[in-house]
Amino acid sequence: MSASTETAVIDIAVIAGDGIGPEVTAEAVKVLKKVTSAEGLELALTDYKLGAEHWLATGETLPEKTIQALRGHDAILFGAVGAAPGDTSIPSGLIEREMLLKLRFALDHYVNLRPSFLYDGVASPLANPGAIDFVVVREGTEGPYVGNGGVLRKGTPHEVATEVSVNTAFGVERLVRDGFRRANERPRKKLTYVHKHNVLVYAGHLWKRTVEAVAAEFPLVSVDYLHVDAAMIFLVTDPARFDVIVTDNLFGDIVTDLAAAVTGGIGLAASGNINMDRTAPSMFEPVHGSAPDIAGQQKADPTAAILSAALLLHHLGHNGAAAKIEAAVKADVSTRNPASPRSTSTIGDAIAAAL
Amino acid sequence: MSASTETAVIDIAVIAGDGIGPEVTAEAVKVLKKVTSAEGLELALTDYKLGAEHWLATGETLPEKTIQALRGHDAILFGAVGAAPGDTSIPSGLIEREMLLKLRFALDHYVNLRPSFLYDGVASPLANPGAIDFVVVREGTEGPYVGNGGVLRKGTPHEVATEVSVNTAFGVERLVRDGFRRANERPRKKLTYVHKHNVLVYAGHLWKRTVEAVAAEFPLVSVDYLHVDAAMIFLVTDPARFDVIVTDNLFGDIVTDLAAAVTGGIGLAASGNINMDRTAPSMFEPVHGSAPDIAGQQKADPTAAILSAALLLHHLGHNGAAAKIEAAVKADVSTRNPASPRSTSTIGDAIAAAL
Ligand SMILES: CC(C)[C@H](C(=O)O)[C@@H](O)C(=O)O
Ligand SMILES: CC(C)[C@H](C(=O)O)[C@@H](O)C(=O)O
Repeated sequence: MSASTETAVIDIAVIAGDGIGPEVTAEAVKVLKKVTSAEGLELALTDYKLGAEHWLATGETLPEKTIQALRGHDAILFGAVGAAPGDTSIPSGLIEREMLLKLRFALDHYVNLRPSFLYDGVASPLANPGAIDFVVVREGTEGPYVGNGGVLRKGTPHEVATEVSVNTAFGVERLVRDGFRRANERPRKKLTYVHKHNVLVYAGHLWKRTVEAVAAEFPLVSVDYLHVDAAMIFLVTDPARFDVIVTDNLFGDIVTDLAAAVTGGIGLAASGNINMDRTAPSMFEPVHGSAPDIAGQQKADPTAAILSAALLLHHLGHNGAAAKIEAAVKADVSTRNPASPRSTSTIGDAIAAAL
Repeated sequence: MSASTETAVIDIAVIAGDGIGPEVTAEAVKVLKKVTSAEGLELALTDYKLGAEHWLATGETLPEKTIQALRGHDAILFGAVGAAPGDTSIPSGLIEREMLLKLRFALDHYVNLRPSFLYDGVASPLANPGAIDFVVVREGTEGPYVGNGGVLRKGTPHEVATEVSVNTAFGVERLVRDGFRRANERPRKKLTYVHKHNVLVYAGHLWKRTVEAVAAEFPLVSVDYLHVDAAMIFLVTDPARFDVIVTDNLFGDIVTDLAAAVTGGIGLAASGNINMDRTAPSMFEPVHGSAPDIAGQQKADPTAAILSAALLLHHLGHNGAAAKIEAAVKADVSTRNPASPRSTSTIGDAIAAAL
């Protein structure tokens, strides 16, 4: 991977994927092209065919050679993958695990970064949402996502199925430190860590001790803890209280979909799967899935994909270009009228025009 | 345990517990006394001292002899237990695990039943909540709550902490069947099971296969599946869509606090820890905790405790008495004015008077 800040060429792998993935990614690429050319940056894009469609055609999920090829890029722009929930031609969860999660693990995307921001003009389902502006720093490479576990006496009345959540000091500490760094750079400097250490004692106490230890390095950051169930309540009664939320892989999955919902829906929620050590490219993707039910109809909102491209630019150090995208989104979003929805490409055009 | 439907004496163990537990339980007992006497039922109450205070005084969490004594009652009315989050005199989570969860496991409370109902006159944090009326059937005796797991190289940079979720065909099937039975008795006959089987394959597929198998016994019940993250979204964008939600212990913990929040708060959320086979007494408790910050101030809302007493009466077959409590709560709640909160005992008096 070349250090992109040393060169004007931004070398991006594009995995558009399935369902609405290609449509929303096309708009993100449109916006990326426009903003980089305005900033005098050169953009090199390489398409990779991966996902459910690709699996059906080839039987490949994510071959080792593709992982190697992806490693050569500065970053990955990801659309969405996965078949329709009822589609039985693809084993349930196969693409999610063997492709999406495999990428997160192989490229050591330990920071799963998910900002939640309630834009002016966006309707929250909450009656009094307040000024929501927080970021979830979700662990991305361990916890209940490691694929550990097994099944005994499958299909019999004596079946036992286990899932093992694996948590390491190494993995928790690097994530927690990243959370503190981000909190330290924000005006409110507030970090809330979310777990369930009254029940999950082993993992929970590793998290607790780690947060307490790392907190000592960041005296300006105020720290507070919530059990995941209590976090649910605050996310709907007072989401504006949050600044940085640090949590494990599974709790982060749950918290970020709720956070997306209270800020107006997953059509707006961007994310980064980030390798902070830059030993492999990071990957940026909308939080939403492939939504096969509306695929190919130009009904999907490309905003989350476009904001994910902004996170990508931030990660590569192109903060000016990223800020331009964010400002254009902010402007576009404030003019939206839910009564007259626009097509995917119309929204992309509008955001590109507002750059 | 005597079969209470054969006798007019209702023999209840009362564990008021810590914090606001005693205050709210006193109101539940007040209402229970009034309704049972009006119905010509005899009520026998036995107090058990358990919880954080009791542990500080005696070092006992839940001795075997207390479990044995509790087994002799028809049911248990539970308040709340636990010390203040910052209280370091009690090991974090000790009372929750060694007392509350120990009771749920020892008495085989496999159905953790949590109704969610938005009462007229109660303000939901949602702008358009719709008519919320569902019940969560949460598994109560396995999953990530079993206390399995461990820690290696504790306190070193090489620490590994694991949590093992244990799921059995036996445990999942009895819970799922209970959920279907309840769905089958409700007008909408709709069951939504919530898991994360695209990631937690072993446990998730046991759940999936079990739901599919049991569904065949209930042809009138429509079944639908949601990943837990997607369930978060629907719980705030369209909670009225749910009828019966069936889910595992940890997802149920998360879903029910969110459900309580969208229906106006945990001051109203009742629950039953139910042993459907009646091999041991079931236990009824408000979903809320001991709230040490407001304890002893008559600020707590006893409604959840009172509604838990109604669930207790339902479980023991006293449906008339239970329905009276529910109607009284409905009437009281519709007259509430958030601008002039009433004391704990005033609310209890009002509900008792409305019986
Ligand atoms: C598709 C799925 C495996 C994934 C996850 O659980 O992480 C998704 O829900 C997400 O949040 O990115
Ligand atoms: C106190 C805690 C152990 C408990 C749980 O997690 O089950 C509580 O949150 C609940 O939902 O009853």
